Amino acid sequence: MPPFGFLHMRVWASLFGQLLRSPRAVCIREVHFHSQFAEAVLTSQLKPQQEKSNFIIKTPKGTRDISPQQMVVREKILDMVVGCFKRHGAKRLDTPAFELKEMLTEKYGEDSGLIYDLKDQGGELLSLRYDLTVPFARYLAMNKVKKMKRYHVGKVWRRESPTIVQGRYREFCQCDFDIAGQFDPMIPDAECLKIMCEILSGLQLGDFIIKVNDRRVLDGMFAVCGVPESKFHAICSSIDKLDKISWKDVRHEMVAKKGLAPEVADRIGDYVQCHGGVSLIEQMFQDPRLSQNKQALDGLGDLKLLFEYLTLFGIAEKISFDLSLARGLDYYTGVIYEAVLLQTPAQAQESFNVGSVAAGGRYDKLVGMFDPKGHKVPCVGLSIGVERIFSIVEQRMKTFGQKIRTTETQVFVATPQKNFLHERLKLIAELWDAGIKAELLYKNNPKLLTQLHYCEDMGIPLVVIIGEQEMKEGIIKLRSVASREEVAIKRENLVAEIQKRLSES
Amino acid sequence: MPPFGFLHMRVWASLFGQLLRSPRAVCIREVHFHSQFAEAVLTSQLKPQQEKSNFIIKTPKGTRDISPQQMVVREKILDMVVGCFKRHGAKRLDTPAFELKEMLTEKYGEDSGLIYDLKDQGGELLSLRYDLTVPFARYLAMNKVKKMKRYHVGKVWRRESPTIVQGRYREFCQCDFDIAGQFDPMIPDAECLKIMCEILSGLQLGDFIIKVNDRRVLDGMFAVCGVPESKFHAICSSIDKLDKISWKDVRHEMVAKKGLAPEVADRIGDYVQCHGGVSLIEQMFQDPRLSQNKQALDGLGDLKLLFEYLTLFGIAEKISFDLSLARGLDYYTGVIYEAVLLQTPAQAQESFNVGSVAAGGRYDKLVGMFDPKGHKVPCVGLSIGVERIFSIVEQRMKTFGQKIRTTETQVFVATPQKNFLHERLKLIAELWDAGIKAELLYKNNPKLLTQLHYCEDMGIPLVVIIGEQEMKEGIIKLRSVASREEVAIKRENLVAEIQKRLSES
Repeated sequence: MPPFGFLHMRVWASLFGQLLRSPRAVCIREVHFHSQFAEAVLTSQLKPQQEKSNFIIKTPKGTRDISPQQMVVREKILDMVVGCFKRHGAKRLDTPAFELKEMLTEKYGEDSGLIYDLKDQGGELLSLRYDLTVPFARYLAMNKVKKMKRYHVGKVWRRESPTIVQGRYREFCQCDFDIAGQFDPMIPDAECLKIMCEILSGLQLGDFIIKVNDRRVLDGMFAVCGVPESKFHAICSSIDKLDKISWKDVRHEMVAKKGLAPEVADRIGDYVQCHGGVSLIEQMFQDPRLSQNKQALDGLGDLKLLFEYLTLFGIAEKISFDLSLARGLDYYTGVIYEAVLLQTPAQAQESFNVGSVAAGGRYDKLVGMFDPKGHKVPCVGLSIGVERIFSIVEQRMKTFGQKIRTTETQVFVATPQKNFLHERLKLIAELWDAGIKAELLYKNNPKLLTQLHYCEDMGIPLVVIIGEQEMKEGIIKLRSVASREEVAIKRENLVAEIQKRLSES
Repeated sequence: MPPFGFLHMRVWASLFGQLLRSPRAVCIREVHFHSQFAEAVLTSQLKPQQEKSNFIIKTPKGTRDISPQQMVVREKILDMVVGCFKRHGAKRLDTPAFELKEMLTEKYGEDSGLIYDLKDQGGELLSLRYDLTVPFARYLAMNKVKKMKRYHVGKVWRRESPTIVQGRYREFCQCDFDIAGQFDPMIPDAECLKIMCEILSGLQLGDFIIKVNDRRVLDGMFAVCGVPESKFHAICSSIDKLDKISWKDVRHEMVAKKGLAPEVADRIGDYVQCHGGVSLIEQMFQDPRLSQNKQALDGLGDLKLLFEYLTLFGIAEKISFDLSLARGLDYYTGVIYEAVLLQTPAQAQESFNVGSVAAGGRYDKLVGMFDPKGHKVPCVGLSIGVERIFSIVEQRMKTFGQKIRTTETQVFVATPQKNFLHERLKLIAELWDAGIKAELLYKNNPKLLTQLHYCEDMGIPLVVIIGEQEMKEGIIKLRSVASREEVAIKRENLVAEIQKRLSES
């Protein structure tokens, strides 16, 4: 089954097939970092008649309209992602765009400053949601739900400073899948990784790998290296940058800015440069320091079990145990993961930035933070980085000059003569009532050439033509836009004939 | 073609078929007015360990989570609405949730106080969008688009006071279709009314009528009745209440509160009690006062043409020219319309409130308000009141105790024995990889009865059973949950057999 049966297959085949094979594809992973906001700025007046001065028509900083072309790409990608979530038995949930401000406090660590607050207009203090995970945890606690497999597609808002993180939007779409409930270890976690593989393979974005680690292994590693517990979080943040800056720079940050002893940093350095498969887990079990730490052993035990399940799922070779993976968010408590697109050798020379396109992990304590009695509901989940995926696909289409239909119109109702509006209106209503997607020009007397050009521009496959001659004979002409062939059809058979043609194509 | 092929047909048949035929349906049109916000309030502590006091877990006032059951109903209704928009050749557009505050000012008249502002956190002053029409006009002006047929499905936010308008949510979904561009008169307008008819008929909500009027007829009427021009807007607001309160009360408001002379009010009264079809338009053309007013004549001329097209579309009998229709929003300039569900005689005794389920009109000057040079782009459009439709359908399902599946899982992977997790995981991965929607329990050793109960609860039609005996024989048992029949299938034929069964059902 092709991933995008709906779209013109040729378009998608080249869309997804050629990206990382092409030498020009090198620019693609930079899309997310280097693209500027699409702010068409017009310094002018809103209401000239009212003499307002210097009015700028634009969308708010860091936001943008999504054009019909972009919407088509997005809908196809979202359909595919949601299709996978449904294949795994998830229900759909939606939550309000804003939450009580206090629901979001103490959930995001250093990033809390990026939350959008609403103005106090009397009543409650509100904030726009920052992700879909915290609202999900709030929903579970509020409704005392102990078990749920849900997905959520929706917008979230973050006041990222565009000068610091260039090209990152302040409004963006998230697609989350989460499994809440007390289950036997690592079975839901393995399913989350399976889902990430299915989606990334299905979208044909090129080769990818999923890095896996465990917060307990990370904490254990910090402990045995001699990091004071008060610095765990700060050091974790530094480690999290390893996919963007070199170990040398991370080490400098830890020692110079975060006051870590150089020998402690070096011990960490030995660990975080390790990545591999099951054999690395075994090696860490034998590690003289790590094997002394209870937390680390718990994490390693779960990772071992996880790899057992991933092997059964046939995806173990896509997964890399990576001790440098830290993940920014505060709420993770166990296994964490992040999928990255792999670079071709040509790309590897260009940049450190290989895009993360999906991520997630286990957060067993978040629901308990909302529950009055602190009752915990263990959770594990993932988020697909659809915005980055949209950018990659859009950029690829631009690179290859591919055109996409923004409408699904099947039939156009045309006339070569004047004064045929009434006939056209009667005819098109008949098509609409039969469920056929149809358009006409909103003109009393349009030119035939204008009408045919419109069909070619919009990719409409069929034209129904009615004129004096046809009226006399009780027929209609049906024209194929591609072949320019015309056939005469009895007026009363028109709908049936169109439906036959559309079902064949 | 059934309107909801996806859902269990029996459910939808009764869902849409029985509402207004049932005597209990009387309560349905009150749903929107009398339902309370679903705020599950828990007075308690967020973080018991941190001793926060009196924390309430809830969604913000006037907002709610949308449960998986509700999401299923919503998605089916939205699919149907969007399907109709696509049938008419519309492209999809999306805009940010918030706009620059100044984009929304002077667009909504008295209702501007209901706009949600964002807190000033440095940078631009922002507001949440109040509808989808103003962002569309801003988009057209910003991108200098002169012609576009687009639809938009998205949330909007209004700080309605729940004490005044009970049961109205502050966050709700809108579904808009609009045609922008300079065309021959009334062709796009007629198409908008056709779309409203197609959607309301398709959803089978019961009988409905679409009231039509024209802002120019209304203004002309005010002028010839002797309303001072400064009071046009205030009197228009009073007239707009005629579907909720009686003429006597509206007259009182106009005279006592808005200072209109009683004889002027009475003259208006003669007009606003008129409604009918084309013959009423003809009658108004002959009206001694109205026929003296240029604006009114322009409006009547367009309405006459509109009815001509509506007759060709076969929907004229659904449309009523109604001089009491005013519509609240400031930006309308021409034809306006509003669809209401018709009451059965039993319902009519209970209440004035017949729900408006779709509305719209022509707004030729809104885009010009954004354009630096005041260039106008004439527009006409409609908005489907999907929230009210959701409520009606949800209430109907509740009334008839109908259950809806919240997942689409086709196959459950079960075992009657211990220590079969590995086999179950291998098997389910095979199903997922073949595109089959499958689930298992996240337990090492679940009981068979628990597994089968899960299938019955969730409406999963097929179970694949693997155990020792099956392993030995190289087979799998395939069980139909409904009939409880089991057949043995060769392991290697399993996927093909399941796909065959699913395609047949």
